[in-house]
Amino acid sequence: MKRYKILLLVADGLGDRPIRFLNGRTPLEAADKPNLNSILRSSLAGLMDPIEPGIVPGSDTSHLAIFGLNPRVYYKGRGSFEALGAGAELREGDIAFRGNFATIDENFVVIDRRAGRRLDEAEQLVALLNREIQEVDGVRVRFYRGTEHRVSVVLSGEKLSDKVSDTDPHEVHKKILRAEAREYTEEAKRTAEVVNKLTDRIISVLSASHINKERIERGLPPANIVLLRGASTHTELPKLKDYTSLRGAAVSATALIKGVCRSLGMHVVTPPRATGGVDTDYLSKAAHTVKLLKEDYDLVFLHIKATDAASHDGNAPEKVKAIEMIDKVVGRILDGVGSEIVILFTGDHATPVEVKEHTGDPVPVMLYTPDSIVPDYLSDFNEREARKGSLKIVGLNIMHLLLNYSNRASKYGA
Amino acid sequence: MKRYKILLLVADGLGDRPIRFLNGRTPLEAADKPNLNSILRSSLAGLMDPIEPGIVPGSDTSHLAIFGLNPRVYYKGRGSFEALGAGAELREGDIAFRGNFATIDENFVVIDRRAGRRLDEAEQLVALLNREIQEVDGVRVRFYRGTEHRVSVVLSGEKLSDKVSDTDPHEVHKKILRAEAREYTEEAKRTAEVVNKLTDRIISVLSASHINKERIERGLPPANIVLLRGASTHTELPKLKDYTSLRGAAVSATALIKGVCRSLGMHVVTPPRATGGVDTDYLSKAAHTVKLLKEDYDLVFLHIKATDAASHDGNAPEKVKAIEMIDKVVGRILDGVGSEIVILFTGDHATPVEVKEHTGDPVPVMLYTPDSIVPDYLSDFNEREARKGSLKIVGLNIMHLLLNYSNRASKYGA
Repeated sequence: MKRYKILLLVADGLGDRPIRFLNGRTPLEAADKPNLNSILRSSLAGLMDPIEPGIVPGSDTSHLAIFGLNPRVYYKGRGSFEALGAGAELREGDIAFRGNFATIDENFVVIDRRAGRRLDEAEQLVALLNREIQEVDGVRVRFYRGTEHRVSVVLSGEKLSDKVSDTDPHEVHKKILRAEAREYTEEAKRTAEVVNKLTDRIISVLSASHINKERIERGLPPANIVLLRGASTHTELPKLKDYTSLRGAAVSATALIKGVCRSLGMHVVTPPRATGGVDTDYLSKAAHTVKLLKEDYDLVFLHIKATDAASHDGNAPEKVKAIEMIDKVVGRILDGVGSEIVILFTGDHATPVEVKEHTGDPVPVMLYTPDSIVPDYLSDFNEREARKGSLKIVGLNIMHLLLNYSNRASKYGA
Repeated sequence: MKRYKILLLVADGLGDRPIRFLNGRTPLEAADKPNLNSILRSSLAGLMDPIEPGIVPGSDTSHLAIFGLNPRVYYKGRGSFEALGAGAELREGDIAFRGNFATIDENFVVIDRRAGRRLDEAEQLVALLNREIQEVDGVRVRFYRGTEHRVSVVLSGEKLSDKVSDTDPHEVHKKILRAEAREYTEEAKRTAEVVNKLTDRIISVLSASHINKERIERGLPPANIVLLRGASTHTELPKLKDYTSLRGAAVSATALIKGVCRSLGMHVVTPPRATGGVDTDYLSKAAHTVKLLKEDYDLVFLHIKATDAASHDGNAPEKVKAIEMIDKVVGRILDGVGSEIVILFTGDHATPVEVKEHTGDPVPVMLYTPDSIVPDYLSDFNEREARKGSLKIVGLNIMHLLLNYSNRASKYGA
């Protein structure tokens, strides 16, 4: 049998519920999807619980499961994924924090958790921090720029621990917090001390910078601190190539997802004008996906964040539009590589527009293969029709299904 | 409630996909199945993933699961199952190899991996080897005849390991391989040495035999070596009677499956003219099944290999015919024991005719019970209709379902 290449297409937060504004339809039901529905005729379809029924997945835990690694075993926190996604090279034992450039007043009370969110000087501020703060108490410190106000902070050295609390109070009008050991170990105590000294250094470097002086002059909130949260230890993950034999590439503009993919040893591409938002350049992503599928990769993973972003904003029309653009992306890819390809389309979790947060609802899944199979004969790809399909799966099943239907699976036993 | 006897009927490789030659129908759809469809009206039905969705099962791992033992825990390789199926008595720690009588030239290059496949002298050759080679370096050696060119080889002794590589190069025109230790242990090193000395002895015994001299005179390839592969350690498995309370008997002509059943402590019967092929005597198997059901057995497992054999040959009409014969077998059994019996019919995996290999597709399953239950009202037992049924199960569920619907289950809890 021919071994097909694989497109794994994940729309972040795809799953939804009936929306009043859409006359009781879900965004998938409301969206026009000629390309998806065309391959649906030869597809398996159904519902997937990314982790387990009812468990509300994060995008990181869900993607780990979809890529075949049980998050109960492999997930250690999102900090190191974000740092990897932001370009960090991490070694076993490094401690990564998620950070925000933020604004505090002279009493260390948080005025703006995002320093105005749009921070045109983020690049310069990160460079400044890396120049001025290279180590604290013998611990190496590195800063990596994320999107908008986000920055990853990585500590490298002996005897560090991720069992330290956040300096981020997670609310405005509250004082920043002192990091504390979350367990009775020397490592945790020492790491908390390093984090607190680091925070003092960051405040003094940023407060003294001309960039912030200019921001204040222009009436903008100064980025005078990096709030830290979610310490996580970097541990090496198994590599996709080793446990599936698949050479994998990823197309994504979302740091967290890029970090997961880098952790799995995948080649990660962020096409020009791909933003991880509703303003992303879908067709640039499609073009890069086609290019990678024509190269030496067996599996190309295409991640679209816009569906989730629209959901968090409670914007149903924007989510419908994102799905319609995804359908166009599928059309472009089929035009580019032909239909001799296995395609799995799903979401990593539901983010219902009326909830604006991730939920543990199952998400629709469809699996197209060029081979002759008994398809599920759904008339449309959406949450309601998916109930009639034969797939009732969890995220951990997906890699096995892809290997099977692309004729790449090894027999278990004789 | 009455405790019913149980017929567990497994058609090897039953599951399939739409076949062009059958106008897009699967063999199950194309086959005439009056007896199965008659009991289907009072049956549960649906789809089963023998291991997990997408995992491509071997017949051994799948049967372990169907009999209620998780292969991830209990499966150690097929060698010991085949040896047991060929009649070996194995003790904990014995090392079993799968072997082929094969033909090599004077440079130890494999000319025919099956010594012509049909080997009428196999019985005599096995007897010769058992007479001439009883031990190597203090390790006891036994040979057991399998079907056609197949032979199981068992090593018994202290300090042996299954971590040794094959002598079988798995291809013609290649030299036979020297066995090597696959881990750094004295046991593995010693076992590899024994295997290599054993191979030298086998070659000299077989080359000198008059049987091979006569084969050469008749223009046939001499069976002058036994190629060894798939070393596996025999470990005792839990017994079906202990973990289900069911006294079990098996009707099968396939060494691998007979070995699995013997491992579980079942009584194994191979009726006359049952071949494990498409030429098997179905009605002889049916008669023996009826006989065993009338005896003191609670569960009789009837295994039919013909469906898988037809699939591996890519022969759709042969597979349709095999299914129609299985339907007749069901009719005979119902005639013989009446309808006061629980019947589960399924496959151990899919072997689609157009793929010719096992795949990880789910397989249809039906469960008939004489008691009044809410049935699934399928109009026909096949892959397409099975999607409408209520069963969405894995192999490990089957024993529990059989115990429940035969009124033999014990309550879990109070």
